[in-house]
Amino acid sequence: MINHRSPEFAALLTRTLEGVKRALYTQNDVLFFAASGTGGLEATLVNLLAPGDYVLGVTIGAFGNRFLEIAERFGVQVQRLEYAWGDPADPTDIDRALAANPALKAVLVTHNETSTGVANDLQAIAAVVKRHNRLLAVDAISSAGALPIEVDAWGIDVLVCGSQKAWMTPPGLAWVVVSARAWEAVKANPAPRFYWDFAETKKYQDRGQTPATPAVSNFYALDTALSLMEKEGMERIFARHRRMGALTRRAIKDMGLELLATSPRHYSDTVTAVKIPASHDFKQVSARLQSEFGVVVAGGQGPLAGKILRIGHLGYVTLHDVKHCLNAIGAVLGRPLPFTLR
Amino acid sequence: MINHRSPEFAALLTRTLEGVKRALYTQNDVLFFAASGTGGLEATLVNLLAPGDYVLGVTIGAFGNRFLEIAERFGVQVQRLEYAWGDPADPTDIDRALAANPALKAVLVTHNETSTGVANDLQAIAAVVKRHNRLLAVDAISSAGALPIEVDAWGIDVLVCGSQKAWMTPPGLAWVVVSARAWEAVKANPAPRFYWDFAETKKYQDRGQTPATPAVSNFYALDTALSLMEKEGMERIFARHRRMGALTRRAIKDMGLELLATSPRHYSDTVTAVKIPASHDFKQVSARLQSEFGVVVAGGQGPLAGKILRIGHLGYVTLHDVKHCLNAIGAVLGRPLPFTLR
Repeated sequence: MINHRSPEFAALLTRTLEGVKRALYTQNDVLFFAASGTGGLEATLVNLLAPGDYVLGVTIGAFGNRFLEIAERFGVQVQRLEYAWGDPADPTDIDRALAANPALKAVLVTHNETSTGVANDLQAIAAVVKRHNRLLAVDAISSAGALPIEVDAWGIDVLVCGSQKAWMTPPGLAWVVVSARAWEAVKANPAPRFYWDFAETKKYQDRGQTPATPAVSNFYALDTALSLMEKEGMERIFARHRRMGALTRRAIKDMGLELLATSPRHYSDTVTAVKIPASHDFKQVSARLQSEFGVVVAGGQGPLAGKILRIGHLGYVTLHDVKHCLNAIGAVLGRPLPFTLR
Repeated sequence: MINHRSPEFAALLTRTLEGVKRALYTQNDVLFFAASGTGGLEATLVNLLAPGDYVLGVTIGAFGNRFLEIAERFGVQVQRLEYAWGDPADPTDIDRALAANPALKAVLVTHNETSTGVANDLQAIAAVVKRHNRLLAVDAISSAGALPIEVDAWGIDVLVCGSQKAWMTPPGLAWVVVSARAWEAVKANPAPRFYWDFAETKKYQDRGQTPATPAVSNFYALDTALSLMEKEGMERIFARHRRMGALTRRAIKDMGLELLATSPRHYSDTVTAVKIPASHDFKQVSARLQSEFGVVVAGGQGPLAGKILRIGHLGYVTLHDVKHCLNAIGAVLGRPLPFTLR
């Protein structure tokens, strides 16, 4: 460890800040917190919104629900726009809801819904929200750094990221990207906060520190990860994820299995949710994948428990890893691929 | 990294939980958060206390002030019991304050004040608070695991710990130790919380998980650190810190320098604050210590900026390290020790 009130840490903080900004195409402020991604969501809520504020809460799955649950917990009035799990959000619904209710101060939305393998069309949603001149806060925990996001060009007011997905860093470091317009709302917001306080964090970061002790080892890892990302290049990273997503979906369909996601234009390129055939039990499938092939898949959350398996293909993952995983799934489900993927 | 919703992580969580409990002589619940120690303080406040609750806030320095500032930020009414920086808290003052004001629901206190090198007599303070039948919440971030604390025998209701001090683990993992009595207050408390929610954390931990993604790599480190601590034994760890503290203070006095701490019975065995002679400038002293001897010392906080230097002697530190540090300070301040410490 190094002294977190030293020039060495200040240099590390600056380097990681700048790297994150480049990856997200933004000049906005990036604020770090020692926390997991959920902490970043809570930080966004208590800085941007006060009890009694009205927001449009768009949810297409478990993580969308979590974002709205946090908002409600802190007294924010959430008008919910909910979709069936597997469906994407429709920007025209958001357009209508904002037009109908001028009291809606902000829109909360998940970019990539990890629980269903669906990626919302964030650019289209942002365009609608900007047209209505409202604030847009985005959970980008499982997308940022893997799917294209142009924070400044699209006009995203708060973007929430977590270290452990596309950023290839151990969990425990979250950050938010805050627009000038969001800052106005934050400064006018009397809601209490201390650990999550954006203004205090900014004040310290501007002198190369954080208010509380930072997660130093996560910064080391992020620094290394950002170097890898610079070397690969963002366009190539996006292309790799597109290829991994496409390969996964093609193989799943070739096995005669069904995706949970309903809209091909909104398939997630970072996670794929696959319906488990009635003939198989998730726990057994998962145990065999791990013991026989060293492959770890996730199950379904909430209403989807036992009904789907989820394949993560983001971050420190190659096409080779994805192929190994798909061959393993084919073998365990008794639906070997017509050819072994290489 | 491992899947944090796996049996492997559940085993790691259980092992670290049990290790922490043994080190703190407690059977109370230990709840982990991906956060720095300040996050643990905030978690304690929003779970234990609601806006409008009255507490006695005991502060002997910068970190005591921080604890009370968080309380006030969340609407808690703080009756302050403040001492000059360098002085310890006097349990008889706490006794009087509690006797005079039955509305005081809890006492907030820092065990070991990192900003001044003073350790409060936590056992005596706890005895007073218990006699008055109030709740006791303790910031033990820079003491727990290095100075003796018997959570259950002393009757501490919430004890806050951070990974990066005596626990020899990178920063980013905080935990709180919660008594049955504290749980009653927590369950009756309507104050909003999500990320810090004790009950939700307990519910997940009981099945080997955490609500949000845990700081997995910090758990690995804590697991290893706890093994080292088990091997050394708590009594020997406490004795090592007593020796390091005593050696530091003796050498400082031998150099003709003055301690900030005023009460020998309350000298901290984890950190020593030394007054800088008027002839020297902290920044220059600190720079020379680092460049010539590879020794990193901390400066003074708030009103003590530039006036003291602080020597940390806790956690992964040996008598040899402390001697090297003291010889370096003697050399840089032009007050070499009468004999070179070996």
